Amino acid sequence: MKLYDFTRAPSPRRVRIFAAEKGLSIPSEQVDILSGKARTPEFLAINPAGGVPVLQLDDGSYLAESDAIALYLERLKPEPNLLGRDPREQATILMWERRIELNLYIRVLQAFQHGHPLAAARIKKQIKDYAEFQRDAIVEQLAWTNQQLAGREFVAGPRFTIADITAMVTIDFGRQVEVLKLDPAHRELARWYDAVSSRSSASA
Amino acid sequence: MKLYDFTRAPSPRRVRIFAAEKGLSIPSEQVDILSGKARTPEFLAINPAGGVPVLQLDDGSYLAESDAIALYLERLKPEPNLLGRDPREQATILMWERRIELNLYIRVLQAFQHGHPLAAARIKKQIKDYAEFQRDAIVEQLAWTNQQLAGREFVAGPRFTIADITAMVTIDFGRQVEVLKLDPAHRELARWYDAVSSRSSASA
Repeated sequence: MKLYDFTRAPSPRRVRIFAAEKGLSIPSEQVDILSGKARTPEFLAINPAGGVPVLQLDDGSYLAESDAIALYLERLKPEPNLLGRDPREQATILMWERRIELNLYIRVLQAFQHGHPLAAARIKKQIKDYAEFQRDAIVEQLAWTNQQLAGREFVAGPRFTIADITAMVTIDFGRQVEVLKLDPAHRELARWYDAVSSRSSASA
Repeated sequence: MKLYDFTRAPSPRRVRIFAAEKGLSIPSEQVDILSGKARTPEFLAINPAGGVPVLQLDDGSYLAESDAIALYLERLKPEPNLLGRDPREQATILMWERRIELNLYIRVLQAFQHGHPLAAARIKKQIKDYAEFQRDAIVEQLAWTNQQLAGREFVAGPRFTIADITAMVTIDFGRQVEVLKLDPAHRELARWYDAVSSRSSASA
């Protein structure tokens, strides 16, 4: 297998952390999305939607989208389990991952895309009002996430799952591109963030 | 089980079609999201993120997010299979569902939220430029989807899956709220759309 990766982007980091938690070491190739390398005809033959991560499988075929790659890796190496064991737990973890993704991750990406100078060349038109709208929504969503973490060790329940990976990647990327700050008053979020950030997978 | 539903909204329709394909008949209760009924304290106790669909399980607990509910129903009633049989097929279907969702479904929802009078009261501020930006992107994404359907019977490959449900719901909702039109020149998309729309589940 080979992972088409870009170290500075959040979506491939979801896959790198997932693989690290599994103890999987996957050779990778950097694709500089900032200079358009994920949109060349050669790369569109690998992933017609453009972008990374893409996992090349051992038969030479390609799998894109971080959640799809994570699912494949979970089946390939079931332990440690990150997507749930029984139907109820699988659905609950997916529910939390979707909540984090739709309410926080996508907002962070859009606040970056529409507000950050680094993203200006990769989008037809930056709408600064929209970046501001999403920054405000992110503040609310972080407060909501803090509330939800009360009495709950990890995002989806008592153990570390893919939902924690998505949430940590969201927060780290959001801080890096300055579209969010962690509020020290959010004690539950800070406690959770310290715990997930101190795992060895966090450096992936 | 009971489904908290709102007939006019796209997200619960994804679940209704999924259940119909499975031959599952789930009693439902309407939650009028347009009048704020999915944001009352009573409903936030059911789904702290607000919104529908929510599935109440037989033990009284609740499961939100359409993908999570679909996964639970797939485990409950594995046939007809809609999420893939082996790891490779499961990951491929998820890849396509994510492409449709991120590149088309979310854009349609945002074009609606930021551009449609019906959505004005449910959002802090409508940014009309952003609705326009997304409408333009939707035109491009429909052309891309049309290309991808060449030589492919359904969105994720040779059989009907959850990716087709998400794509059909996206197009129907987009047409209903007038943020997209199907272009007759998109022959592959038209052929696929006719096929999925003529299934009995489409009326769910």
